[in-house]
Amino acid sequence: MIRIGLLGCGRIGQVHAKTVRTLANACIVAVADAVPAAAESLAARIGAEVRSSNAILSASDIDAVIIGTPTTVHFGQIRAAAKGSKAIFCEKPVDMSVDNIRILIDEIGDTLFFTAFNRRFDPNFAALQARLREGQIGAVELIQITSRDPAPPPVSYIATSGGLFRDMMIHDFDMARFLMGEEFTMLYAVGSSLVDPAIGAAGDVDTAAVTLTTASGRICQITNSRRASYGYDQRIEVHGANGMLRAENILETSVELATAEGFRRAPTLNFFLERYGAAYAAEMRAFIEAVSSGTRPTPSIHDGLQAQILADAATVSCQTGQPIALVP
Amino acid sequence: MIRIGLLGCGRIGQVHAKTVRTLANACIVAVADAVPAAAESLAARIGAEVRSSNAILSASDIDAVIIGTPTTVHFGQIRAAAKGSKAIFCEKPVDMSVDNIRILIDEIGDTLFFTAFNRRFDPNFAALQARLREGQIGAVELIQITSRDPAPPPVSYIATSGGLFRDMMIHDFDMARFLMGEEFTMLYAVGSSLVDPAIGAAGDVDTAAVTLTTASGRICQITNSRRASYGYDQRIEVHGANGMLRAENILETSVELATAEGFRRAPTLNFFLERYGAAYAAEMRAFIEAVSSGTRPTPSIHDGLQAQILADAATVSCQTGQPIALVP
Amino acid sequence: MIRIGLLGCGRIGQVHAKTVRTLANACIVAVADAVPAAAESLAARIGAEVRSSNAILSASDIDAVIIGTPTTVHFGQIRAAAKGSKAIFCEKPVDMSVDNIRILIDEIGDTLFFTAFNRRFDPNFAALQARLREGQIGAVELIQITSRDPAPPPVSYIATSGGLFRDMMIHDFDMARFLMGEEFTMLYAVGSSLVDPAIGAAGDVDTAAVTLTTASGRICQITNSRRASYGYDQRIEVHGANGMLRAENILETSVELATAEGFRRAPTLNFFLERYGAAYAAEMRAFIEAVSSGTRPTPSIHDGLQAQILADAATVSCQTGQPIALVP
Amino acid sequence: MIRIGLLGCGRIGQVHAKTVRTLANACIVAVADAVPAAAESLAARIGAEVRSSNAILSASDIDAVIIGTPTTVHFGQIRAAAKGSKAIFCEKPVDMSVDNIRILIDEIGDTLFFTAFNRRFDPNFAALQARLREGQIGAVELIQITSRDPAPPPVSYIATSGGLFRDMMIHDFDMARFLMGEEFTMLYAVGSSLVDPAIGAAGDVDTAAVTLTTASGRICQITNSRRASYGYDQRIEVHGANGMLRAENILETSVELATAEGFRRAPTLNFFLERYGAAYAAEMRAFIEAVSSGTRPTPSIHDGLQAQILADAATVSCQTGQPIALVP
Repeated sequence: MIRIGLLGCGRIGQVHAKTVRTLANACIVAVADAVPAAAESLAARIGAEVRSSNAILSASDIDAVIIGTPTTVHFGQIRAAAKGSKAIFCEKPVDMSVDNIRILIDEIGDTLFFTAFNRRFDPNFAALQARLREGQIGAVELIQITSRDPAPPPVSYIATSGGLFRDMMIHDFDMARFLMGEEFTMLYAVGSSLVDPAIGAAGDVDTAAVTLTTASGRICQITNSRRASYGYDQRIEVHGANGMLRAENILETSVELATAEGFRRAPTLNFFLERYGAAYAAEMRAFIEAVSSGTRPTPSIHDGLQAQILADAATVSCQTGQPIALVP
Repeated sequence: MIRIGLLGCGRIGQVHAKTVRTLANACIVAVADAVPAAAESLAARIGAEVRSSNAILSASDIDAVIIGTPTTVHFGQIRAAAKGSKAIFCEKPVDMSVDNIRILIDEIGDTLFFTAFNRRFDPNFAALQARLREGQIGAVELIQITSRDPAPPPVSYIATSGGLFRDMMIHDFDMARFLMGEEFTMLYAVGSSLVDPAIGAAGDVDTAAVTLTTASGRICQITNSRRASYGYDQRIEVHGANGMLRAENILETSVELATAEGFRRAPTLNFFLERYGAAYAAEMRAFIEAVSSGTRPTPSIHDGLQAQILADAATVSCQTGQPIALVP
Repeated sequence: MIRIGLLGCGRIGQVHAKTVRTLANACIVAVADAVPAAAESLAARIGAEVRSSNAILSASDIDAVIIGTPTTVHFGQIRAAAKGSKAIFCEKPVDMSVDNIRILIDEIGDTLFFTAFNRRFDPNFAALQARLREGQIGAVELIQITSRDPAPPPVSYIATSGGLFRDMMIHDFDMARFLMGEEFTMLYAVGSSLVDPAIGAAGDVDTAAVTLTTASGRICQITNSRRASYGYDQRIEVHGANGMLRAENILETSVELATAEGFRRAPTLNFFLERYGAAYAAEMRAFIEAVSSGTRPTPSIHDGLQAQILADAATVSCQTGQPIALVP
Repeated sequence: MIRIGLLGCGRIGQVHAKTVRTLANACIVAVADAVPAAAESLAARIGAEVRSSNAILSASDIDAVIIGTPTTVHFGQIRAAAKGSKAIFCEKPVDMSVDNIRILIDEIGDTLFFTAFNRRFDPNFAALQARLREGQIGAVELIQITSRDPAPPPVSYIATSGGLFRDMMIHDFDMARFLMGEEFTMLYAVGSSLVDPAIGAAGDVDTAAVTLTTASGRICQITNSRRASYGYDQRIEVHGANGMLRAENILETSVELATAEGFRRAPTLNFFLERYGAAYAAEMRAFIEAVSSGTRPTPSIHDGLQAQILADAATVSCQTGQPIALVP
């Protein structure tokens, strides 16, 4: 039985707690949150104790921690968890500072670390990647990733988010690396504030496109927007030497209406917790499986670092208008 | 060069004339129509002579006739054409009377005869049937044919049409035979007047469903309606031992609109001359090819007879509420 | 808190137990099974007691029973549950004998009774029906239901199943009634043994088609097969005066592969517990909601009766080759 | 009646001749080709005279010329045609040199000039653009154009083609301008030789991606490849403030095969003359309509110039790795 301490009892912490409850070989022993009521409420629901974060990080009856706290406190919690010999499941981003992540990599050594890029575990994207690795379309030549949120978050959130490339497109950077199987060496980003001028006024963009290339000349294009009237738009298309693999959107229902206006299908699943519900559950199962078996999980902290490097480079490229060479 | 006489210069006659003009090895020498102005207009456009029907049917400079006249005059024209040793392309139905068709079969003997069930030549349905014959899904078990017109014809037309089963579903009966490859032995039909009470008042139905079975237990279901708000609905689905083959509708464009209401594609092609444009051209090419090479074309007059037998049986079944055993 | 007794700890009982665990206002107090080990195993997993069926049916600390036992014992358990003033959730079919169901209707009086036709609760079919009731396509004219299992059950199961119409198509009969909103007055069924001769030898069919009509002339066609190589095929298509509503299959993933052979999407979800997983959960929530609020749930025992009447009629029609008039 | 002289009797000249034959208000009077036999063969088929190019360009009995000759002779023929007061239909590219096109713009003045970017007339793309102009999705924010050939042309062709950006992507540059409705101000291109090293050795790329932005921050991404195993891949996706419009590929047939491997649809139409057959016919009708009515047609010579400017910039950007600012 893997004994888990949960740090952060917000929305994502609750999702992970729910998954752990369905597992036979793991249980949440203790939870912590800066808001005591949040910790108490969740603890009551799942039959866990409330403890302080520090108590959890140094507890002898806890094997692993799930870090679902604000990004700003990740750094200290990761350090303490590694010191306390806990396996670590950490929400993305590991840290807003690439330098900090490098420090953590040095410090945590062999500590089992899982960076929670949940989309790798979406059943559709995972199936696509598996088929890619099986060679169904041969060597990858071109990847197109489309990722659009239904609506922008509050501008107050935008202001502290690190910007679209670090907050939103970071998922797509990880997906691009996951699918390409070769590191990128050049990046060019453009971005605009077309959805809401207030986002531009806050110094961010809401519509963006990035081009990535590898040393061998493979290409990846990513587009992001904070707006999609038809729901959460999450698509991947990979072209290889022998064909194409693509994963289409997930619609709310399979019902189609035909009238004089034509054939109408439902919008896409609109809420990320629903769209990626299976992915959240699968990533937690993968983490617990890695802890149980003692194998190295992916995405690793190295994957967390690389995605952050790409997000930083995109931010700079978008601001300067210049392509950025990526040092491997 | 196959020299053709065209009987009937109405809408369908003009379609056939247009196809013949694109062929290198056939030409229309003469045209005839009960309305002189119709014949003259078409003749001028395609560079043909106007002659009387009788003159065409006995002409020595004509190898083949296209019969696109009203069904009531088919009988006499077919007899005369056979007597005049012309190859015959005849619009469906060959004749409203099964007895008359049997007489014609006796009389015309070896005359090359093509019953114009154009849908067999639709590129999609033809491809489906070819794959069936290749064995892509194994032995046929169940066929579903959906056929819906965008809107009912005038009630005045209904009154002289022979009824839905003989006028509209006859195409589907032929398609069912084409796909099944085994004659049907039992038929059950139901029908209602749901679209327009005037159609019911005229003694016909506008919504109908037929079940056909073969001696070996294979099943075919056909549904027809005189109404489809989303355009001309023409679909086929065939289930075999190893899988399914289906041909979907043809939409007006490939454009899809995504909004908060979901994903909207265009209605289906709405007009039968457009929907089956390629089929009309392909059937004429098949006829000319048969005449050129001296091979027996299908659909034959026998196919015309069998479809009419099914249409008659459906009419009786719908009226009596009883299944009808079909004598092979 | 609704206190539940579960009768039958087999596959479907376990599904229902799992759903109840996710509900805040219901719990399973006790379970029973003819196989003690099955009851003990499930009881241990969900924290319930093991009791005898009789003890559960007469218990004063139980408000409702879930009947997931073999059909043959439903009759006695329903009677006892009603006598014990329990709300009843009963798996379909209520009973193989229409006469028995009529007796139960008389006896149970106002007892809250839910017939578990789960497909009404499939999110897609439920959405389709809701849109129908909203009038999105106007008055219903024609319904087509396609229902195909991936592979036939063991012949030993077939022999005691009551036959395809009572065992498999009964779901579609209930769906037809659910969607049509008008009782059927005439039924015609055909069926064959095309999938496995052993099924025919056991006196059953494995491929079948039924035509149903209502007094006002509306039509429903249902096709069933015990075989579908591409997965579990579950589709509905409803034509109304103003358009069509259809629910398509659910594919395993949204991934599409494009190669020289064309575009290939995944097979359909293959296992009924997965395909209808959401439906099983939703029907249980609906039952508990009805018990909580004291409202009459649907599908009712009357719905269970009507579906059985249609299944019986189809069995007779298929055997005699004659249409069957249905007495309302 | 518009009297036309056709310069160039190759593949594309024959396509245009075929379209003109279907028009009631235009006819081809004379044809010319550097290969006399090509001119004679086409002339015989369509009932036109063979003349020299110069004779056609100065003829008093000719109102308009179709220039379907090699790009290298366009410059002289356009000048002569303008001098001879002929309306001009010119195949793309107008000229490989942007400077030359500017000279022509000065010289031809008010001469009616049509640049044959046929894809604007594809029924699907034209419908998409019309809906865009109707405001169905609001202001354009992001455009994605995917354009892939089934297989690369001979390397010998590549060597004289001007390179992928001028030879292939030029169609997409025109489409991007057609859809965006605002000129682009910045361009970044990447390209690789992944399909065939011989293409790289010839100094060209076979896989490429371009990012275009406008002064108001709108973005367009274009990807091209000389290879697509599943047929000719031609897709457009436009995101606006209120939704998305996209045009999907055209498949060879509407037939779908379902087996244990899933659902398989046909490859896309593979040959550009078939894929864009309707577009070729529609652009010629648009030209003749403009000549008849004396209105200014689009795409104009200005459109030809702008596309060439983008192609040149992309070629430079791809070679230098730098974004290129576009001077309006």
